[in-house]
Formats: sequence, structure tokens, C-alpha cells
Amino acid sequence: MAAVVHGYPSTMQDDYQLSMGRLIRQAVRAYPDAEIVHRNSAGEWGRTTYRENFDRIERAAGAFAKLGVEVGDRVGVMDWNSLRHYELYWAIPAIGAVFTQLNIRLPEDDLHYVINDSQASVVVVDETLVPIVENIAPQAKGVKTWVILSEGQIDHNLPNAVYYEDLLADAQPLDSWPNISETSAFAAGYTTGTTGRPKGVFYSHRSQYLHTYNTAKDLSASVDDVIMPITPMFHVLSWGMVQVAVMVGAKLVLPGQFSAETLGEITGALTDEGVTVTNGVPAIFTPMFEVLKSKGVTDLTGLRLLCGGSEPPASLIQSYQETFNAEVVHGYGATETSPIVTVNRVTEAMRERMSQEELNAYGSKQGKASVNIDLKIVDGLGNEVPADGETSGEILLKGPWITASYHGMPEEELADKFVDGYWRSGDVATIDAHGFIKITDRLKDVIKSGGEWISSIDMENAMIGHPKVAQAAVVGLEHPKWDERPFMLLVLRDGETITKDEIDEHLRQRFADWQLPEEFEVVDQIPATSVGKIDKKVIRNQYQDRYK
Amino acid sequence: MAAVVHGYPSTMQDDYQLSMGRLIRQAVRAYPDAEIVHRNSAGEWGRTTYRENFDRIERAAGAFAKLGVEVGDRVGVMDWNSLRHYELYWAIPAIGAVFTQLNIRLPEDDLHYVINDSQASVVVVDETLVPIVENIAPQAKGVKTWVILSEGQIDHNLPNAVYYEDLLADAQPLDSWPNISETSAFAAGYTTGTTGRPKGVFYSHRSQYLHTYNTAKDLSASVDDVIMPITPMFHVLSWGMVQVAVMVGAKLVLPGQFSAETLGEITGALTDEGVTVTNGVPAIFTPMFEVLKSKGVTDLTGLRLLCGGSEPPASLIQSYQETFNAEVVHGYGATETSPIVTVNRVTEAMRERMSQEELNAYGSKQGKASVNIDLKIVDGLGNEVPADGETSGEILLKGPWITASYHGMPEEELADKFVDGYWRSGDVATIDAHGFIKITDRLKDVIKSGGEWISSIDMENAMIGHPKVAQAAVVGLEHPKWDERPFMLLVLRDGETITKDEIDEHLRQRFADWQLPEEFEVVDQIPATSVGKIDKKVIRNQYQDRYK
Ligand SMILES: Nc1ncnc2c1ncn2[C@@H]1O[C@H](COP(=O)(O)OP(=O)(O)OP(=O)(O)O)[C@@H](O)[C@H]1O
Ligand SMILES: Nc1ncnc2c1ncn2[C@@H]1O[C@H](COP(=O)(O)OP(=O)(O)OP(=O)(O)O)[C@@H](O)[C@H]1O
Ligand SMILES: [Mg+2]
Ligand SMILES: [Mg+2]
Repeated sequence: MAAVVHGYPSTMQDDYQLSMGRLIRQAVRAYPDAEIVHRNSAGEWGRTTYRENFDRIERAAGAFAKLGVEVGDRVGVMDWNSLRHYELYWAIPAIGAVFTQLNIRLPEDDLHYVINDSQASVVVVDETLVPIVENIAPQAKGVKTWVILSEGQIDHNLPNAVYYEDLLADAQPLDSWPNISETSAFAAGYTTGTTGRPKGVFYSHRSQYLHTYNTAKDLSASVDDVIMPITPMFHVLSWGMVQVAVMVGAKLVLPGQFSAETLGEITGALTDEGVTVTNGVPAIFTPMFEVLKSKGVTDLTGLRLLCGGSEPPASLIQSYQETFNAEVVHGYGATETSPIVTVNRVTEAMRERMSQEELNAYGSKQGKASVNIDLKIVDGLGNEVPADGETSGEILLKGPWITASYHGMPEEELADKFVDGYWRSGDVATIDAHGFIKITDRLKDVIKSGGEWISSIDMENAMIGHPKVAQAAVVGLEHPKWDERPFMLLVLRDGETITKDEIDEHLRQRFADWQLPEEFEVVDQIPATSVGKIDKKVIRNQYQDRYK
Repeated sequence: MAAVVHGYPSTMQDDYQLSMGRLIRQAVRAYPDAEIVHRNSAGEWGRTTYRENFDRIERAAGAFAKLGVEVGDRVGVMDWNSLRHYELYWAIPAIGAVFTQLNIRLPEDDLHYVINDSQASVVVVDETLVPIVENIAPQAKGVKTWVILSEGQIDHNLPNAVYYEDLLADAQPLDSWPNISETSAFAAGYTTGTTGRPKGVFYSHRSQYLHTYNTAKDLSASVDDVIMPITPMFHVLSWGMVQVAVMVGAKLVLPGQFSAETLGEITGALTDEGVTVTNGVPAIFTPMFEVLKSKGVTDLTGLRLLCGGSEPPASLIQSYQETFNAEVVHGYGATETSPIVTVNRVTEAMRERMSQEELNAYGSKQGKASVNIDLKIVDGLGNEVPADGETSGEILLKGPWITASYHGMPEEELADKFVDGYWRSGDVATIDAHGFIKITDRLKDVIKSGGEWISSIDMENAMIGHPKVAQAAVVGLEHPKWDERPFMLLVLRDGETITKDEIDEHLRQRFADWQLPEEFEVVDQIPATSVGKIDKKVIRNQYQDRYK
């Protein structure tokens, strides 16, 4: 990176530290009456306001200080999208400690790895998740206190456990908030582990503050919005939705505990509370569409559904538009990027200029890089690919909310994760003349066959377009002659069968003959990661000898 | 201010410098086709796009470098709201120099003071303003080069003058943009001089970047907006409107040269170009209302008019609402605050809860402090006043876009301009339970009579409500017994006369007997400053002996 050049001195308060503690205090002052509607693990809804709830935040901060949590300490949190989770978002960083996100769906082995790698000295866990941590408590030797989130006493066998509500009842509200430096860590997150071990990223107060401003802008969020985070609050801080709500003073709807199977319990809130912004992965928005339809919902005008994590099928975007008049806003990012780096918002000008067909094709693009983010796409030699929407390369990212490192990773391992100050995303994409990127694959998933590349995602998307096919996964498997060859797993619609000829015929519309997979398998279920992404590691392992 | 506490290190790119150079480059990349509609000093309209125009910005940057402008140098600019002014906004900071705003309406004496105080080595001036600088050129000895903005050659007698267009034609576009530190000055501005000599404030890249994010958020600005800055681009950077437009990728309409008298030439653009955001002082929006009405405009739905600098009369806000369905958004700030620190946006929730009468009263409040700004109102002892909407005190401000100092001001003079890290605004206000502030006066203009305070602004506003009165100005004049007594200047509506009894009767609705002015004068015109504020210095001087 070019060396920093110093110009003429400014007269401004440039030492005013951006911090999450300031954000919540200023938001409570500016929007005292903004509502928080919340649902607990028993499924009961409640209501409070920013100001009313703030006393609990200050008490929680006081309580952690009393527990011995000091500036810089890490506190793990494992919870649903609950009101207490919201309180912890602010209370832990308030005293300069690091809010450490624990993904409740991580395999046990990864979970205790994360607790140990972050060196969390306190772990806060919802009563419904206590059974999970009971199993790993013996290996998590650094944890001095477990804090249980519950309405009352519960049966458990955690050592050194206390109840959050008891702590709050006993605590003094934090009286003076430290002026924490903006480059200190305020939260930690770990990558999903799609391609290996979860890797730790420590977000600074500054990076999160800027990410919040930027995401508020990219979503045109305002005080009149009603924001319901469906993305788990332990997954890249629900993509910053809670911080955005607080910054603009929006009403916040916290749906508590739910899963893809129990969406019916929370979708009512979308209409009852007048939600205008929500977020989630395609694996949630797909079943949610069916739930909404089955409930007889016909109109969700004004609702923006921020969708990312993997590519939403064009059909999903269209269905929400046509059936509910709701806008699926496609975004892209990663744990390492706080996460939002591109958002795809179709502008009025584009609507006027483009045909419906073109617009549909644009919907499945990941969008344009936000201001404040340097995005480039480079080939194997590090040269930028042409902006032709066709040539692909790896996405490199630089910016104030992009990581510069991984927690505790040795230098030699870090070396190939960064290049020239840019984070290497490992994502393969094209970029078009309008600056819209389109992810075609992960570098690790691209199929390298006879010196050429085949996009596994393109092939999956093409196959999902076949009327008999419900889901598709494509991976490259080792091949003695071609290096790799594509292999396909299919989940078919109820009662259907499919032949190799039918597959070939369908794929020939978009792929050359040499690209077609020789082998496929029909299965009941495709292996998935903790957040519902296709787990290609597992598939490659299971079928590794297919072409040998 | 509490000492900064350092927590656990983050892994983020916290050394990524926020800079105006990055902003324009990233915006051009993200919104290449966003339009700029512009009007030159000859009144001709033109159109270009962010990308198309960017070549001129890069050439201008290259040209200044070639002229010998170095990192940290100050370059003065004196121009209307023109396309070239827009180019200079970016080209000068691009090379690490300081864009130094020169108010074209400053008295000559103040103008050469500003040029000398800022030590500008180059001054850029529009052809229409050359006669002004010709007069002061002999005193501005530090200026090595004058750069003239014009379509062709003009008659002038400036020494060492070159033409901007010639420079551009000869220049190489800047090839590598320096990585300027975010705390370096990117622009300088001087206070209006309402209360004394103009005072210099040097904005950092960081302060402006954060101000832009925040103002975009406070205005809910988006890529679908069309932004036309009416506030001069030499006056606190037109309150950041240009930067906001560029950050969100909005279409920008630059109205060029105009005055309160020639508004007719630019108001057409409001409807023709579909403007959704504009800004200005009440002294502009008042005549603009008449111009719009006389042109037969009936509908400006979707238009937000950011209005500040002084308090817009409630009747003005209502007129725009009722006649055009346009929203006057009241904001408050100062040169020292970049400027936006409060914005008054009536939310849906407020609309539902309040009567029309209450809403009208809210319109004339200055609004709530933005997040990221610490605002407090203190009495003479430095204690915060109660949030009762009645008790008044001085507004103190702290935040990343508030100044911490004045350029070149000696320490001893600075001492009473700041207290405990807060800038002392000199503005007297109340704050209510919802956090809305209402400015009642300037500390220097408050009338201190017999140990009590009388708000000069309250009295002016009350008097403007009289059917015979067009304008009113109230100042405190020295009085041998009471310290000060109120004195009033009135401009009457055509053909009207007014008596002391009529004044008293009208004011008694809101003021106690002891507060009523003993003396008044009917005049043709009220002395005003360069930006159209009442010039109370001049009035106090002129009538100083009235009560003696
Ligand atoms: N809109 C999107 N379209 C396609 N892929 C996306 C999109 N958004 C995110 N992704 C994918 O998700 C990745 C980020 O996911 P996350 O950080 O949660 O963990 P992971 O990359 O899946 O796991 P790990 O890094 O541990 O292998 C991106 O790098 C990209 O591959
Ligand atoms: N919405 C508003 N309502 C009332 N007054 C306002 C409003 N906005 C700005 N002002 C007044 O304008 C001032 C800022 O003006 P500016 O910085 O241009 O120079 P000035 O204060 O008039 O001049 P100087 O500081 O040199 O005396 C504020 O301090 C305040 O007094
Ligand atoms: Mg990853
Ligand atoms: Mg001032």
C-alpha cells in the first residue's frame, strides 16, 4: 500500500473515537421511544423501548465488570435473536470487552476450538443451548464463569454457572463509560468453516461504526423503517442489522428462537409489525416464501429482504416480487468483511433502461462494491480482469471494514491470505461495465478440467432450472487424465426420476459437451454446513474415488 | 475528556484512510452513469456524467501539481455553484492540498483577511468575480498564481493569471493519487463574521467523510435522489450536499450563478430535473416560494428542502407543505460543525401521535442531535439545563466533525471558545423531553435587562406574525439603569403604518410588560450580512445612543 502522506493539519476533533458505546448512548438519547418488539425462547412476544431497555444494558455492563471482566477480555455469547442478545451486543463492548460470537450450529469440535482460540473467560448461553455447552465445558478450561440466560432456575451441570437475571438484579448500572479507542476490538467472529477450520476475525469499534453507516446508506434505512433480523445474531452480527436499526432509530423486531422448520411462528410479525427490512440466506427465504403463501399473505409492499451468504436463485427474487411485491436485495460479503461489501439495488434509472429480462439477470448478480471499499478481480498473475461480465478471477478486497489478518494465525499461513494489502476472498467472479460483480464459484470449488475452468455454481443453477430438480450440488472430483471432472448430486421433486440424457440435454443449453458431468447421483439430501451452505468438503470426500 | 483506553487489538484494516480522493474515485466506479446537470455563468445548461467528468478532475489535479501546488498547500476558490467548482472540490484535495472556500459576498476587507490568513498560494476565481479580486490582489501578496474560470479570454488586470481551461488542456491526468492521511485538512472554511472577524476552520478528510455518511443518513439520501445545492458551494461546502450526492450516486444539479433576485432562472430545474433534495437559508426559500407560485407550480411532492443558517418561520414551512406538498427539513449547524449537527425530521410515529398544531410548533425547532454528536445545553455555571423545553442555556458540541480549534488563533483567545473538549456555539437554546432543541438566541444577542433575559429572536418571530409587518429585527441597546433594553427595527408591508400601541398590544400575547421595547424605528431595509442574516453588530452601532 502506498505510504500515508501527511498534509496540512486540520482543526477538527479527529481524536473523537468512534465506538459502539457512543452509538448506543447517542441513539437512546436521539430515539428514546423507538420500540423493540421481542420474542423469547418460550415463544412469547414482548415490547419495550430503546430508553426503557437501556437500564438493563447499563446494569449488564455493571454486572460483567463486577464479575471481573476487564478491558480487552473476551466474553462468548451463544443465543438466538433475543432481547438479551441485543443487550449483550452493547453491554460487553461498553466496558471495553470483546463480544465473541459463538455459532450455535457449529460442530462441537469447532465450537470448543472457537472458545479456546478466542480465550473467552466468560461464556453467556441461552437456557435452550445449555445441553450443547455442557458437552464441551470440560474442554473449555479457560472459561471461568458460565452465565445462563433464562426466565428462572434450570437443571444443568455447568460448573461455575450464574444466572444473567440474578446478575442484573444485583448490579449497579455502569456509571462512567470508558473512552475506548476506536481501533480496539469490540466483537469477534469466526468464519463458518466451509473450507476448513473456522478462522477468527476481530472487529474494531471503528470498522463496525463505518460498516453501520455504510449499510444504513446502502439500504436507505431510516427512522421510519422496521427492522427484523432473521440472519442469526451470532453470524457476522446478523450482518450489522441491529447496529443499523439503532443508528437510524428504527423499530427493531427480534424474533427469538426459530429454524427453517418453525418459520411459521415468526412470519406473522412481518405483517403484524409492519416490517420493512429483514435479512437471511436463500436457505431461509426459500421455505419462508412457501410459509407466507400458505398463510394467505398477498402483499408485502415496502419490504426489502437483504439476501446473501450464497446466491439467491433468480426464481426466488422473482417470486417475492410477483407474489408479494417485496424486493429481494442481493448482497455479498464474508465474516472477514463485516460483512457487507456489495449490495445489488436496482435503481429507477436501471428500471427505465432495461427490459424485464435484463433486470432478472441483474438480480442474481451480487451488485456493486460500496463506496469505501476497493474491490478488484484478478487473474492468476494478479492482473485485473477486463470489465466484460465474462472473464473471471478472484475477488480482492480492501477497506475500513475488511480484515487485515486472522486471530492467532502464524505469519507464514497468513502470507497467502493477503496480497498487497488486499484480503483474498477466495471467491471467483466476473465484473461488468456497470461495476456489477457476479460470483461464479469459490476458488476451491472451481472445477479445473484439462486446463480449463468449469463453474460449479453455474452448473447448479442451470440444473435447478430443470422442472424435475429440487436441488443440485456440483463438485470437481479428481480424475487421472483431466485433473478434475464435474460430479453432480441431485435432489428430485416428489416422485420424479431423471436420466443422464435428460441431464445432458438440459445442460447443453448453457455448457459445452466437454463440460458435462459423466457421473451423477440422486440423493434425498445434500450435505450442508451449519448455515445451510452446500458442504462440498463432505461431498468430495464421500465420492472421491468416482473417477479414479 | 476521559483518557482513551486501549482494548484487545482488532484484526481489521484500521489504517485505511478515509479520504475525499477515495470517495470520488469509488463513486465514479460505482455510479459511472450518474448525471451532473450544470449551468454556467452565461446561464446555459449542460449535462455530463460522473465518469465523463472525472477526466477533467484528474487533469485539474495534474494541472495544480504542475503549477507547483504541493501537499498541504492552500488553494483558494471563489465561484458560484458551477461544474468547475465541483471539479475543484475533488481536484485540489486529490493532491493533498487544501480547498479553501472564499465567500464571494464577504466585505473586501474580510476577503483579503481570509486569503492572507489561510496563506493561499493559488486562488481560482470565476470570470464574473474577477473585478472583486482585482481590488484586493495588491494586498494578497502570498498569492503566486491567479487561475481564471471562463469559457475564453477575458479583460482583466490580475498579475500572474492563467486560465483554468488552458491548464486542463495542457495537463496530464493525475496518475497516482497520494494516500493522504485522514486527519490532514482537505478544505478550509471561514465563519460568516456575524459576530466579528471571520474565523478559520480546517476540515479533515475524516471529519468530512463522517459528516457525509451522517448527512446522507439523516436525509435518507439514495441513488434515486436528485440533489440541487442552492446554498453556495463556498458556504460550509454547501452543507456537504455535493459530497452526499457523490456518496450515494445521486444525480446532481448545479444551478450556477444566481441570487435571491434571479431565482426565476433556476427554479425551473426543480421540476424539469425532478429534484428531490435541495438546501438553502430562509432568506432564499422565502422569495423562492413566491417565484414558484408565480410560475404556476402546484406540486413538488417528494422534494425535501433542507433549511438552516437561521430559523425558518413556521409560516414558511407550512406554505411549502400546503401549496406544493414539499417538506422543509429544518437543520442547524455552523461553520465550526461541518455544518450539520441537528436535523428536524418529523417521523411517521410523531405524525400519528401529534396534532397538526403540535406538529407546526415542532417544525420551528432545530431538531435532534445526530448520532455521533454529543450535544449539551448548559447554564452559566456549566450545569446541564433540564430537558423541559423552557430553560435555556448555551449549546456545547463535541463530535468527529466539530472543530477543536481555530486556525492561527492564539491560545489565550481559544481558551474561552472551548470547554472540556466541547466547542461553545454561542447559541442559546432549550431542549425538550424528546431531545429536540429550539434556538432562542445568540449569546451575544440575548438582551440582558435588569438581570433577566429577553430572546431577541422570539420577539422578531412574534412581530413577523403581525399583519402589517414584513420583517423585524430586535437588538439589546445599552441602558443606564437596566443594562440593556430591547430596540426594534421594522420593515412594513406596502403602504402600512404602525403605532407603539399596536406593537405593544401584539407583543403582549407572548411577552410581559417589562419586556416590551420602549423604542422602535420603521426602516426600508434591515442591515444584513453576506449570507442574508440580520447584521446586529451594525444595528447596535447605529442606534447605540438610543437609551443613553
Ligand atoms: N451473495 C452471495 N452469493 C454467492 N456467494 C456468497 C454470497 N454471499 C456470501 N457468499 C459466500 O459466502 C462466503 C462467506 O461466508 P462465511 O464468511 O460465513 O464463511 P465461509 O467462507 O463459508 O467459511 P470459511 O471461510 O471458513 O471456509 C463468501 O466468501 C462467499 O463464498
Ligand atoms: N436552523 C437555525 N436556526 C437558528 N439559527 C441558526 C440555524 N442554523 C444556523 N444558525 C445560526 O448560524 C450560526 C452559524 O453560522 P456561520 O457559521 O455561518 O457564521 P456566524 O456564526 O453567523 O458568524 P460568526 O461565527 O463569524 O459570528 C449558528 O451558530 C447559529 O447562530
Ligand atoms: Mg470464507
Ligand atoms: Mg458563529
